[in-house]
Amino acid sequence: MLTIEYDGSGFSGWQRQPGKRTVQGELERVLSVLCGGPVELAGTSRTDAGVHALAQRAAFSGEYGIPTERIGEAANRLLTGGGPGSVGDVRILHVEEVPEEFHPRFGAAGKKYIYKIRNAPAPDVFLRNYCYQVSRPLDAERMRRGALLLEGTHDFRSFMAAGGTPRENTVRTLYRVRVEESPLPEGGAELSLEVRGDGFLYNMVRILTGTLVEVGLGKREPEELPEILKALDRGQAGHTAPPQGLYLAEVYFDKEALFR
Amino acid sequence: MLTIEYDGSGFSGWQRQPGKRTVQGELERVLSVLCGGPVELAGTSRTDAGVHALAQRAAFSGEYGIPTERIGEAANRLLTGGGPGSVGDVRILHVEEVPEEFHPRFGAAGKKYIYKIRNAPAPDVFLRNYCYQVSRPLDAERMRRGALLLEGTHDFRSFMAAGGTPRENTVRTLYRVRVEESPLPEGGAELSLEVRGDGFLYNMVRILTGTLVEVGLGKREPEELPEILKALDRGQAGHTAPPQGLYLAEVYFDKEALFR
Repeated sequence: MLTIEYDGSGFSGWQRQPGKRTVQGELERVLSVLCGGPVELAGTSRTDAGVHALAQRAAFSGEYGIPTERIGEAANRLLTGGGPGSVGDVRILHVEEVPEEFHPRFGAAGKKYIYKIRNAPAPDVFLRNYCYQVSRPLDAERMRRGALLLEGTHDFRSFMAAGGTPRENTVRTLYRVRVEESPLPEGGAELSLEVRGDGFLYNMVRILTGTLVEVGLGKREPEELPEILKALDRGQAGHTAPPQGLYLAEVYFDKEALFR
Repeated sequence: MLTIEYDGSGFSGWQRQPGKRTVQGELERVLSVLCGGPVELAGTSRTDAGVHALAQRAAFSGEYGIPTERIGEAANRLLTGGGPGSVGDVRILHVEEVPEEFHPRFGAAGKKYIYKIRNAPAPDVFLRNYCYQVSRPLDAERMRRGALLLEGTHDFRSFMAAGGTPRENTVRTLYRVRVEESPLPEGGAELSLEVRGDGFLYNMVRILTGTLVEVGLGKREPEELPEILKALDRGQAGHTAPPQGLYLAEVYFDKEALFR
């Protein structure tokens, strides 16, 4: 099992697609070279184009001539462009052996996502791929109140994009929905939304975030969130926040760790 | 005269080139739409591909129907992709009227560049386009000693890349060459090299930085720098640090400001 970090800006998402540069595709290509045979990765989360990961997990199995502890460093060398100080946009942080029947998606007890918002009057060109830049002032306290109303077990159908499977069970448990605010030296603030849950519907974190941004802007009341949940209607929730603010931050295989 | 900020990662440098995406090309395209006629920009510094600017300066002249104070905001809207929170990779920070005979390159008294180095054992994929990542430990104190020996008026031919004009006068004055070190929360440090001078040869800051990195790594002594200057030979200086760590930080039109 691999733990992987990537900058999603240059990728058409996680999942392998013909003719497109994807994280799974890049990793499989490099691992196949190293292992001397075709490697197929099973990932935990199919992140969309532009979405980042601090600790995606993925696994593959087979009998190869390369020791497990060498795979990460050797793959990272192949993933880097070359030249002094050259760093790739995907990097293997850790490799470990797991039982063969282990599946990083079905074996996962939950995940943590972080969504980063930069709230300042003037945009920052250097951060355009790394956060959602909101120029009008956000009231973080209102967002916090709204966020707390989303914690718990609910049917999150209102927060599922149309691309999701329509007949799937849309009940999920969010163990934590927290908003942290830190002031920026240049004025304004960075807001960081942490969402931990046992599972997520298609675009769920981005729709949650878009709705909370509307609460922060004063377009909606925090107390509307339970009504939006009850409506079971995507049309009642807010806009879908853009992909570049979203980071897959952690995958939990131990349910206890979700609460810590 | 425009003051412009850009992330150089997605550009083939400042200067207009047919079939390539350049900062000058993008700005001229957008300003020509706004002004309803062809606009030609004269820039202060022809930054290379991958090099960033915090405050590049460029000027154009003509009689147009748009008030000067509206140009920046209107151009920035056209420079942005669109969609919520969408931010472009080049942005006009300020627009001011200057005398028609003013030229932002020949009128400049000097410039300040900043070169950012991340010195930590593990690379950061999110910063790959924004600094030079050096994994082996750098001794900032040695680099500081070397940097001070570069201040003053010298013939910098040893620090000029082959692409420069061979017969040009290669004497320049550096008013300040300073190294600042700040610890990183994850371990290691960020080093920031500030260089102020009345002019710069082709790749000069990147070769200065590469040489000081070799001093920081212990491959060279700080006291070698005067000898390297005296040699007037590019072969005596160190490697050319990569473009992504370099930021054009300020252009001075007032000579006094260079010393402040």
